[in-house]
Amino acid sequence: MPELRKDPVVGRWVIISTERGKRPSSFVVAERKSTGGFCPLCPGNEDKTPPEIMAYRPDGSSPNTPGWTLRVVSNKFPALRIEGDLNKKAEGIYDTMNGIGAHEVIIESPNHNEFLSTMPLKNIEDILRSYRDRIVDLARDRRFRYISIFRNQGEGAGASLEHPHSQLIALPVVPKRPMEEFAGSKNYFGYKERCIYCDIVDQELSQGKRIVAENSEFLSIAPFASCFPFETWILPKKHVSAFEQNPDWEYKFLAEIFSDTFQKLDRALDHPPYNYFLHTAPLNSQINEYNHWHFEIIPRLMRIAGFEWGSGFYINPTSPEDAAKFLREG
Amino acid sequence: MPELRKDPVVGRWVIISTERGKRPSSFVVAERKSTGGFCPLCPGNEDKTPPEIMAYRPDGSSPNTPGWTLRVVSNKFPALRIEGDLNKKAEGIYDTMNGIGAHEVIIESPNHNEFLSTMPLKNIEDILRSYRDRIVDLARDRRFRYISIFRNQGEGAGASLEHPHSQLIALPVVPKRPMEEFAGSKNYFGYKERCIYCDIVDQELSQGKRIVAENSEFLSIAPFASCFPFETWILPKKHVSAFEQNPDWEYKFLAEIFSDTFQKLDRALDHPPYNYFLHTAPLNSQINEYNHWHFEIIPRLMRIAGFEWGSGFYINPTSPEDAAKFLREG
Repeated sequence: MPELRKDPVVGRWVIISTERGKRPSSFVVAERKSTGGFCPLCPGNEDKTPPEIMAYRPDGSSPNTPGWTLRVVSNKFPALRIEGDLNKKAEGIYDTMNGIGAHEVIIESPNHNEFLSTMPLKNIEDILRSYRDRIVDLARDRRFRYISIFRNQGEGAGASLEHPHSQLIALPVVPKRPMEEFAGSKNYFGYKERCIYCDIVDQELSQGKRIVAENSEFLSIAPFASCFPFETWILPKKHVSAFEQNPDWEYKFLAEIFSDTFQKLDRALDHPPYNYFLHTAPLNSQINEYNHWHFEIIPRLMRIAGFEWGSGFYINPTSPEDAAKFLREG
Repeated sequence: MPELRKDPVVGRWVIISTERGKRPSSFVVAERKSTGGFCPLCPGNEDKTPPEIMAYRPDGSSPNTPGWTLRVVSNKFPALRIEGDLNKKAEGIYDTMNGIGAHEVIIESPNHNEFLSTMPLKNIEDILRSYRDRIVDLARDRRFRYISIFRNQGEGAGASLEHPHSQLIALPVVPKRPMEEFAGSKNYFGYKERCIYCDIVDQELSQGKRIVAENSEFLSIAPFASCFPFETWILPKKHVSAFEQNPDWEYKFLAEIFSDTFQKLDRALDHPPYNYFLHTAPLNSQINEYNHWHFEIIPRLMRIAGFEWGSGFYINPTSPEDAAKFLREG
């Protein structure tokens, strides 16, 4: 059983997941998975993944057969286990609980060689709707406090498979970064009676210089204090605390700004490796006045060295204003 | 002038240092510095670095000539500038100040091919004393709040030069990670009237299973909630809040545990790339009951993917107990 452990000083929870199978000695020689041209996520190989949890099948085809346009399965090597109790306990001054959670893979398209920048808008809409559908389903499980949705594009961003996919991890604790955002935005609200992200949207719209893309409902910006070159956030213009609360008619606009933003990134940076992560409200506080969901996209252009790891202090060689201009003008 | 910018939500300061010289388009093709076999840090090339700030010269040789055993120079491509005022100001809801600070390189040895695991103990003692000497000197500058000392070993850890060296960055703000440790340990002290790191030392000594190395004054452990495989901390057994306050006679023991720990890491993991970072008290609070200086060593064995970046939630495939055992038994 994987184990969740809490750092006693800074309160960060960590998954110790030794069952994923690396022995200490396996780190001595760096490994690189090779699938030898075979892709377990491609149509026809449905039996090479765990059974599907959900799929979009416009042709009404049967589960675990071809015909799907999007498919959600459990991760074959899950970091957490879905069955069991949390069994929270102390080990002296330390806190621990069982590594309970869901770890799913969202197979975004039957086409192996698609990018978010090349996909039809309908396909992107479906990906975003699948995020919502899985959140709504998993939120019913009272053991969970947070649902993390993220996407790794390219080997340089840690993707072990090429086929377009996102991942979801449902957790019994709120991870550190969303917790910090929650605390920071709550604090700001207490002081100002306004959502800080709404203030960011207002200032970015009036200044214009950090805007990457925009439509009537969404804004894509290079954030003022970007940690990384070409870091980009996508936010709803109106206040919505949890992703799954966004009205259905807005998915069209969200797909549009996704497509626009990733076209700009892929054109300007020649299909960079990147990670994105959905920041949304914790499950026990889905409607509030200070959390404001958004996606954070981090192109992986630089190696992070010791100073950044150790300090949490980032040195960014590209100003957000230059990055936004370069993306806009492509 | 580089600029310091504060993330308005989570309070993280970032250096926007465009003068370091990358144009947006330079990210399109990944670069790799090549020095073509020439090392600017080797003896005889003293004129290829900025003039030395300090050096250990047992033979009494002249500054900026060979004969040194350790040499400290300004970084040729500093992330911050030493001259000027902070000029703190607002840009709407955002906070910014000039990027004032010191960025120095500690050239640890005249020998190009040395590792911490191969250096004589006297050499390691000198490196650790040079950290103290630079902190004591820079702490006199009232603009600074924190002095970061770190070391990148190997290309995989972001080192751009092979020659053994550490780096120092003096900052006008306290970086996020030390600030979090400061807040967390202060909170614990308020609750328990004890230093949390002293409690960690006690529990680790009594449990034994996460100990990597030990002598009468220092302890080296795989921390309970390690984020990374083989993450290792070196702590003084007795409470000392700031690194520079450690008594001089203890350097011998600190050098010994450094040597022991890095011999174990280099033997077990075949000279892995790693980063280490000194966590010490902020300059305006050098003596307190809750901060407890320590080094955090992070071998760079895995690629960090989107989940970790976005969430601050780490999945560690090697338990600290297994890692410590593997290091102890080699």
